[in-house]
Amino acid sequence: MKLEKLEDYVITIPDFPVPGIMFRDVTGILNDADGIEMAIDKICEQLEDIDFDVIMGPESRGFIFGMPVAYKMHKSFVPVRKPGKLPREVISREYALEYGTAKIEIHKDSIRPGQKVVIIDDLAATGGTLKAVIELAEELGGEVVRIVTVMELAGLEPQKAVEGYDLRSIIRYEGK
Amino acid sequence: MKLEKLEDYVITIPDFPVPGIMFRDVTGILNDADGIEMAIDKICEQLEDIDFDVIMGPESRGFIFGMPVAYKMHKSFVPVRKPGKLPREVISREYALEYGTAKIEIHKDSIRPGQKVVIIDDLAATGGTLKAVIELAEELGGEVVRIVTVMELAGLEPQKAVEGYDLRSIIRYEGK
Repeated sequence: MKLEKLEDYVITIPDFPVPGIMFRDVTGILNDADGIEMAIDKICEQLEDIDFDVIMGPESRGFIFGMPVAYKMHKSFVPVRKPGKLPREVISREYALEYGTAKIEIHKDSIRPGQKVVIIDDLAATGGTLKAVIELAEELGGEVVRIVTVMELAGLEPQKAVEGYDLRSIIRYEGK
Repeated sequence: MKLEKLEDYVITIPDFPVPGIMFRDVTGILNDADGIEMAIDKICEQLEDIDFDVIMGPESRGFIFGMPVAYKMHKSFVPVRKPGKLPREVISREYALEYGTAKIEIHKDSIRPGQKVVIIDDLAATGGTLKAVIELAEELGGEVVRIVTVMELAGLEPQKAVEGYDLRSIIRYEGK
């Protein structure tokens, strides 16, 4: 069913996964073919004005939004994975999450020096994941030219965490 | 770089994650925009002759291949997730993996009775994951009309595990 705005598809769950967190559930977008189309097309609109080579998407909601964009815009895709999932030589980063800590990895040959990189994920919260993905890209000589997330929790100040980078979001929530 | 066949993009890693397993690494497909295009277009070709409503993809490589197909063919997408990831009411299934066991979940409202379901994943190995996904779909009243995987390890007999269902694969490896 075609809704007017992308945020109309998002379902908000209070106190998940821990009390005090307002969880923004993107499965409401996925549950409707029109929601998927709107989300992917709006991400692509944010990328129309730049040249780039590679899309990086963090496991696993970054896969959901990053891969259709890679397919549509004819780019390669780097799955940024949790430890132990990638079978070849990797580089890794540890970082703080909104709740807890995590470690992510990419294959050492997934980005070549000088390639222009776009990062796509569902959510910019504290920006910790995005910062770690930027560091992985730069360690391999990639240049992060834009970051696009479906949603941004402005109250957690993700823009501050990725200062100097061009972070854009489709939906902006003022709170945390 | 345009290669002739999809299997030319797949990288084979012996003894990962455990000795004796030949790991078929799909990041070789993803690392090339032409590889992604070929993989997604070949999956879509397998679905051109049927009507369906919903694509289910198991976490997390099922997201990688399922979502671009959902976008291209204008279908909704059900992420089949590991426990504790989905914020609303779920149904779940436990099943045996090629190495170990696992549990998967979907939201209770993700499939409506009578909807025609296609399952997409990277790999048909023992077929255990696919069988569990079928059971989740059917518990909600969905009808699984086709299963498409990028690769099939014929020696592990996934066809037997999903007998009576229409499982198709782009690349067939005779071994395990």
